[in-house]
Amino acid sequence: MNINSRVPVGVLGASGYVGQELLRLLARHPGASVVFATAESAAGERRDGVDLVRAADAALARAEIVLSALPHGVSARYVQEARAAGRRAVDLSADFRLSPEAVYGLTEVTRPRLAAAELVANPGCYPTAALLALLPLAQHDLIDQSREVVIDAASGVTGAGRNPKPEFLFGEVAENFRAYAAGNEHRHLPELKATLERESGFAGDLVFTPHLLPVTRGILETIHVPLTRVIDRATAEGIYETVYVDEPCVEVLHGALPSLRDVLYRNRVAIGVATVAHVRRPRLTVIAAIDNLVKGAAGQAIQNMNVMLGLPETAGLVC
Amino acid sequence: MNINSRVPVGVLGASGYVGQELLRLLARHPGASVVFATAESAAGERRDGVDLVRAADAALARAEIVLSALPHGVSARYVQEARAAGRRAVDLSADFRLSPEAVYGLTEVTRPRLAAAELVANPGCYPTAALLALLPLAQHDLIDQSREVVIDAASGVTGAGRNPKPEFLFGEVAENFRAYAAGNEHRHLPELKATLERESGFAGDLVFTPHLLPVTRGILETIHVPLTRVIDRATAEGIYETVYVDEPCVEVLHGALPSLRDVLYRNRVAIGVATVAHVRRPRLTVIAAIDNLVKGAAGQAIQNMNVMLGLPETAGLVC
Amino acid sequence: MNINSRVPVGVLGASGYVGQELLRLLARHPGASVVFATAESAAGERRDGVDLVRAADAALARAEIVLSALPHGVSARYVQEARAAGRRAVDLSADFRLSPEAVYGLTEVTRPRLAAAELVANPGCYPTAALLALLPLAQHDLIDQSREVVIDAASGVTGAGRNPKPEFLFGEVAENFRAYAAGNEHRHLPELKATLERESGFAGDLVFTPHLLPVTRGILETIHVPLTRVIDRATAEGIYETVYVDEPCVEVLHGALPSLRDVLYRNRVAIGVATVAHVRRPRLTVIAAIDNLVKGAAGQAIQNMNVMLGLPETAGLVC
Amino acid sequence: MNINSRVPVGVLGASGYVGQELLRLLARHPGASVVFATAESAAGERRDGVDLVRAADAALARAEIVLSALPHGVSARYVQEARAAGRRAVDLSADFRLSPEAVYGLTEVTRPRLAAAELVANPGCYPTAALLALLPLAQHDLIDQSREVVIDAASGVTGAGRNPKPEFLFGEVAENFRAYAAGNEHRHLPELKATLERESGFAGDLVFTPHLLPVTRGILETIHVPLTRVIDRATAEGIYETVYVDEPCVEVLHGALPSLRDVLYRNRVAIGVATVAHVRRPRLTVIAAIDNLVKGAAGQAIQNMNVMLGLPETAGLVC
Repeated sequence: MNINSRVPVGVLGASGYVGQELLRLLARHPGASVVFATAESAAGERRDGVDLVRAADAALARAEIVLSALPHGVSARYVQEARAAGRRAVDLSADFRLSPEAVYGLTEVTRPRLAAAELVANPGCYPTAALLALLPLAQHDLIDQSREVVIDAASGVTGAGRNPKPEFLFGEVAENFRAYAAGNEHRHLPELKATLERESGFAGDLVFTPHLLPVTRGILETIHVPLTRVIDRATAEGIYETVYVDEPCVEVLHGALPSLRDVLYRNRVAIGVATVAHVRRPRLTVIAAIDNLVKGAAGQAIQNMNVMLGLPETAGLVC
Repeated sequence: MNINSRVPVGVLGASGYVGQELLRLLARHPGASVVFATAESAAGERRDGVDLVRAADAALARAEIVLSALPHGVSARYVQEARAAGRRAVDLSADFRLSPEAVYGLTEVTRPRLAAAELVANPGCYPTAALLALLPLAQHDLIDQSREVVIDAASGVTGAGRNPKPEFLFGEVAENFRAYAAGNEHRHLPELKATLERESGFAGDLVFTPHLLPVTRGILETIHVPLTRVIDRATAEGIYETVYVDEPCVEVLHGALPSLRDVLYRNRVAIGVATVAHVRRPRLTVIAAIDNLVKGAAGQAIQNMNVMLGLPETAGLVC
Repeated sequence: MNINSRVPVGVLGASGYVGQELLRLLARHPGASVVFATAESAAGERRDGVDLVRAADAALARAEIVLSALPHGVSARYVQEARAAGRRAVDLSADFRLSPEAVYGLTEVTRPRLAAAELVANPGCYPTAALLALLPLAQHDLIDQSREVVIDAASGVTGAGRNPKPEFLFGEVAENFRAYAAGNEHRHLPELKATLERESGFAGDLVFTPHLLPVTRGILETIHVPLTRVIDRATAEGIYETVYVDEPCVEVLHGALPSLRDVLYRNRVAIGVATVAHVRRPRLTVIAAIDNLVKGAAGQAIQNMNVMLGLPETAGLVC
Repeated sequence: MNINSRVPVGVLGASGYVGQELLRLLARHPGASVVFATAESAAGERRDGVDLVRAADAALARAEIVLSALPHGVSARYVQEARAAGRRAVDLSADFRLSPEAVYGLTEVTRPRLAAAELVANPGCYPTAALLALLPLAQHDLIDQSREVVIDAASGVTGAGRNPKPEFLFGEVAENFRAYAAGNEHRHLPELKATLERESGFAGDLVFTPHLLPVTRGILETIHVPLTRVIDRATAEGIYETVYVDEPCVEVLHGALPSLRDVLYRNRVAIGVATVAHVRRPRLTVIAAIDNLVKGAAGQAIQNMNVMLGLPETAGLVC
């Protein structure tokens, strides 16, 4: 690839945490080049070699593909506009994640459908980690659907965006930890359940409780899985190993559990398991970690874009 | 109370995080006065108005009661020595928590047995929060013992003590989060199960997974409780409210969930609940927060000491 | 003191960080009792045993003294109102710090003027630490006024209040450090210079640069003092020791430098010194640390109130 | 460049924070390939695609250049060994920084001497930021050598390495801030003074005070410069702009001050200035920020290596 053959990419919503991460990653992408980046509040500023503009306007015509990091509810309109102008698009908002109009971009799972996709809905950060952890077990009929899967998930604050709400001030978040949206009220639950069912037939109950961590980035999910039969740790690890053997962005740990640190600034999910002693029915604890801004957002969007464009899948990414 | 009538107290192991917290709290206790404090490495230093000494020796005779914050495995010997010298004792280590020799000092639950106790075993930090959250439900036969109770607990690093292990360096803990001892391997599990059974008859399965938080202090536990029947949030809150109505150190939240911040530097457990939607069988999510160094250690030890000595129960404490 | 004889205190502006700290400290004050606390946004809530109200109104008449933690520019009006109603007042805002109408409440320095004061202006957080560090040297004519005193000060984020500005979000402050208002632009400089001159005659140049630390509370100031003559460390420490020998809230370190941790949650300034090697002209580095919310605000306000009311100076405070 | 033509590189001491950063950066270097990496404690583990070995041994012969991140005092011996085997070397320890045997690798300043160098001493982290900030002013005779330059520097904890000392535990560093080695006792001072004099003739006094920040990485230095004549901010910025106009790794801010965040994970120094009001003699405040592990260590080592090998200077680096 030389610079002349780089694919021209447009970025919508470049001033939020996800948008910034897109620019940071695209700046070192060997096969793509940012031709415009919009940002309402930061228009006029320059970031990673790109001048931020208020609106895409004429520049839209120069892009071959558009990545939107606009907020939920706002993104759909601009993505439709880009689609109407004949551009392919990856939407990082929640706007198309449950829509049949878009291909769901969980790269490792939906890869075959991405190459020809005109519109890809990038998965939510929480579902990305949970799905990559649960699908291999569900596809092997190992999850006891008569018992609940309990997911305790913890995220760094960039997951909440850059809106200056009092509860996200340093003085409130530091030296603190709390659940929010307990009781299955989080908007990621429908996405998680719909995808689990579509990709594996799993239709059991989930209990999902997100927590806010005093860290800037990263998601760690502790997933309690009721099993249909007893399996030991090596067997469980072997199942993941087999499913993900050729995946550059999935790390299956052996005899260890992942931590946030293993995945920060990387487009990687790390998965580790532990069997559970002293209980009557078979269970497995699965722990999955991702960087919410990379594999949970901007990185996976680029991974999807690479597949759509026929570029090497990890171009521009560190897995 | 005047200063002449203050109860003379001895502290063993005053240089660790728990020992320091004991001195900090005792310094403003209106009815107690520290007559000696031992500390191997910091002997010779002065903390909160007390000169640290290497060994209790002759000073032991001057104390009416001894509080030991020595490490597990070490504490028992020194506590026995104090007992042999006729002193009453509160042991903050794990050494006597499963022993019939000691009264278990979960103040709100075992208060009637404390007044006459010669030796009190102060509960572990994780069990303190879990037991105060689970016992009211268990005592009301609300927990479905055929399904597992899942506890995801997260603690600040002072819970691990002051030993300089590489995994507790700032460079490893900051911007990180991880589970440790998954799969019911944590040493607090037997204490938790034994106490639940003794105090409520509950004998169901528990899945306990502790996590390490990038904060200095505090424990938050997210407890997933399978219910024997459907109850709504107000009813659940009402049960806690009734059980703890006269308790100065228990805060039951209404329509809200606790965060670490609510309890830091306080001898308080805060408890909040959420019902769980979109699941077939009744469930409740209970969240409990304590300061691991206060209600989870030094504060509860003083609360127990106050009961043993007939002092006002919260003397020296901010609940 | 018994509860009937507690002085009735009113608090204005109880929902900010300083106001919360006032309530936390007054809750355990043996000689004072909060009779009302105003808070615009949090009216109706209960904090530390006090119901927050929108306006003082009739309650003003019941208070003997009023502490105002209202914002700069807003506080003056309400304090004047309380004064007009015959109440004594401590104003924690900047509104009266340069006004002849009020006594400047740097307790250790202006104590004799406080007992009879009707209105006390509580010092700014940065000046409190700087003045207690510089005044002993200035009063001994040890500062070379022909050379600049350089002060690099670093503060935790609660110093900026609870307004939800984007630059104080956790995602911006964590893993970050920066100067703000460099070049002597900070509003605390005139207060610092005026007080230094008034209390010691010092009229040399100051260079003051505040920085924002990724911590919730605490101020540490590194103060570079050009000396009129060579003095060694022990001599410098001796000067501080002599000036502050009877002060319960000043800690002079010997052969050590203070850290934020030494003073958190305490109404204390900790001061340490280092001589400077390899320079041609005599110099001293002085480091001073306070908790910005305690000795830098709420704690010192209560210390001042205690003096005004003839109560023990450290009642309700941990120094 | 294709993979066959990648320069074979050896890494000594790959398990510390700097060594890990070397592997992270070299993993995506388009023109270099790690042929061995030694690590005493972590031998046998695999990091960023490289198997860690106990000793270089025979592998030394396969490397064209060796980068040593071994500790001070240990590194010299192994670097000499590599040199004796005919390998070129960049030593990241302090062992050769004051030695005439090595070329000092402050890339922007000593670039012409690097191409032919057999042994390069990579600068200390604190001197890197201070020198890049001070040299342009010193070379323009703008620093008043009769007055002291005061440098208050603050570093994240990775600057102290991974040795498990109690003072670097999370429980000690979080919510804390402190100076260490005040009074010009820090070992970086001789390196700083010698380089300033050699590269600019500056021989004035420096007062250097390092502080420990509760962040994992990054250095920010607030540098107080006495000037020989009054210059305004635009003029000062213009001087830096002119000196660094062609430098890809130096960012001169205009009308703004740098923060740690501007430089994290980048091989960049960011420099901003402020003039000082209300003082009698001309002064400038200069603030410089680097990532201590990148431009302050591993990144600059790779920048130097690139120059030594004739590769594009920023290959493998994000500036």
